[in-house]
Amino acid sequence: MDKLKSVSFKELDAIEIGAAILGTGGGGNPYIGKLRCREELKQGNKINVIPLNELDDNALVVSLGGIGAPVVGIEKMEEGQECLRAMRALEQEFNCKIDALISSEIGGSNSMEPMLTAAQADIPVVDGDGMGRAFPEMQMCTWSIYGHKSAPAAMADEKGNVLVIKDTVDEIWVERLARSGVVTMGAAAGIAMAPMKGSFVKKYAIPHTITQALSLGRSVINANKENKNPIDAVLAHENGKLLMTGKIVDLERHLKGGFAVGQIVLEGFGDYQNDKGTIDLQNEFLVFCRNDKMEVCVPDLIVVLDSETGFPIGTELLRYGQRIAVLGLPCHNLLRSSRALDVIGPKAFGYHDLEYKPM
Amino acid sequence: MDKLKSVSFKELDAIEIGAAILGTGGGGNPYIGKLRCREELKQGNKINVIPLNELDDNALVVSLGGIGAPVVGIEKMEEGQECLRAMRALEQEFNCKIDALISSEIGGSNSMEPMLTAAQADIPVVDGDGMGRAFPEMQMCTWSIYGHKSAPAAMADEKGNVLVIKDTVDEIWVERLARSGVVTMGAAAGIAMAPMKGSFVKKYAIPHTITQALSLGRSVINANKENKNPIDAVLAHENGKLLMTGKIVDLERHLKGGFAVGQIVLEGFGDYQNDKGTIDLQNEFLVFCRNDKMEVCVPDLIVVLDSETGFPIGTELLRYGQRIAVLGLPCHNLLRSSRALDVIGPKAFGYHDLEYKPM
Repeated sequence: MDKLKSVSFKELDAIEIGAAILGTGGGGNPYIGKLRCREELKQGNKINVIPLNELDDNALVVSLGGIGAPVVGIEKMEEGQECLRAMRALEQEFNCKIDALISSEIGGSNSMEPMLTAAQADIPVVDGDGMGRAFPEMQMCTWSIYGHKSAPAAMADEKGNVLVIKDTVDEIWVERLARSGVVTMGAAAGIAMAPMKGSFVKKYAIPHTITQALSLGRSVINANKENKNPIDAVLAHENGKLLMTGKIVDLERHLKGGFAVGQIVLEGFGDYQNDKGTIDLQNEFLVFCRNDKMEVCVPDLIVVLDSETGFPIGTELLRYGQRIAVLGLPCHNLLRSSRALDVIGPKAFGYHDLEYKPM
Repeated sequence: MDKLKSVSFKELDAIEIGAAILGTGGGGNPYIGKLRCREELKQGNKINVIPLNELDDNALVVSLGGIGAPVVGIEKMEEGQECLRAMRALEQEFNCKIDALISSEIGGSNSMEPMLTAAQADIPVVDGDGMGRAFPEMQMCTWSIYGHKSAPAAMADEKGNVLVIKDTVDEIWVERLARSGVVTMGAAAGIAMAPMKGSFVKKYAIPHTITQALSLGRSVINANKENKNPIDAVLAHENGKLLMTGKIVDLERHLKGGFAVGQIVLEGFGDYQNDKGTIDLQNEFLVFCRNDKMEVCVPDLIVVLDSETGFPIGTELLRYGQRIAVLGLPCHNLLRSSRALDVIGPKAFGYHDLEYKPM
């Protein structure tokens, strides 16, 4: 894989598609973030990408992104400098200069936020992220799992309010306090976590995920251009498995505690015509079952694509009658340790009877 | 009125009663705070009181207290150092040494919190407060009304979590962010506001309210001791008016957005036997009507006392069949300016058709 040095207009389009696929239904739509990144590029600002291995061990790296409900994000646009204000508040808090940014989650809209802020602040964005996908809560990133203390963390909304989560007893309390803060702020805000050392980031980032999203998105674009099967392109790129093609015959989705939770029911097509599939969701797709038997679950990626175009469908855009392909993609090994599974395995999502088996 | 120099065991008992009366039904029960103050005194710590006029113009004074739902406060005890931790976080935030504390509201439990923290931190507490009574929200104190910016404000819970409300667009956003924070923290926390200059506090504090609570409480204790009418003692002390004596014949009270809201209906006794009284409440008593006509409303104080003992009854302890005396007490002039009425007049509580008339 070529090393990405900076991100251009065209690459933004590919990253958008790749990041949405890695969002496994959640993480918010990267589209508006892409438009904002374009504006930065138009104004002559640069999105410079630094590979993990070129990061100085002592560099101060901040993981940041948007926080809120994806459903709200569709209608309530960000003002555009939320993450930058959160980052500046953090610099003031630590009396430091932040050297680089990294995405907390590459899946969905938070692929774009650090690129946008990096362009605004004229610092590079690291090629990697803290999830390699999307997850609904903040303690579910590798930084938290492998021992980084996220507090003090700074949040900013579009109005000018700034909240600092100064100290917490554990990482879940960062999530809890941030979640109630963002609900009050109007369900969309930017959040920046306490700086990490370059040495820590090199060890615990899911590596090369901007490059991965770019290349994955390109494979879908090229397959469409060349009249090849885009589903096959995604499977080949990610070493994934086709789980089912089918039609959505039932859809239950509601907002609970700021999250989109529910289930979709699928009637199989073709090779799968005798199968009933279900996918449980909490912002992201969590568990895929065939005929009531679990086949793939978190932290492996369950991806729903439009069966014709291969474009990903987010949980908020699901509808009755949609024809979809369901794919399982293996997650990174950093997400499969017992330490990680305590936080992002099926039990962490309330599936106490499910054992995670790597696909 | 004698100038109070320090608070002893016996004075705590009187302040408890006086502060609960000034709480106009809300502000939380000062009892547990009193017990904690006693423990500090037992350990040899002092509650030193500084009169407003002895405060240095450049002294840094912090208004602090507990925040949360009084109903929760009955069952969930504070760990005891919440306000101290909030104050220390503020000292760190401003890189300053705080010279004195002042109560945000003398009415209810926040009469005790600053005395407790002052004893722990070995600094004096100012004889005055920001409300002269209790109100349900933080922007309703004189500091906010007369131009102090409360952010950065620091909050701490009993577990060790600390939140800093770093910057807000106005005072209501401090309240909003603090309120969602405290709900997440478990409905009880300590909060300390950005330091004020002594000169500002001298101008805008409701003056001498610790001394007032002490003396008011003493008048009730003495009336009981001397078999005099304690209701008359309160009325004489506060230049108040007896509105009604009667029995609670209906009581509607529920939790809404963290507040106890509702209404009590009274059947009059004696001179009032043909009267129907109602009192609307939101943590505190807001509006008293006789036969559906408003007689007293915020910011003047509506006080409910046990008709026998003269002891105050908080909104959370109201019950069907209780025999009570309802008193109206005039509020301080600082609460009657048009600037103040915008924030704490009847319209601010949703009574758009009510005009405040000073009693």
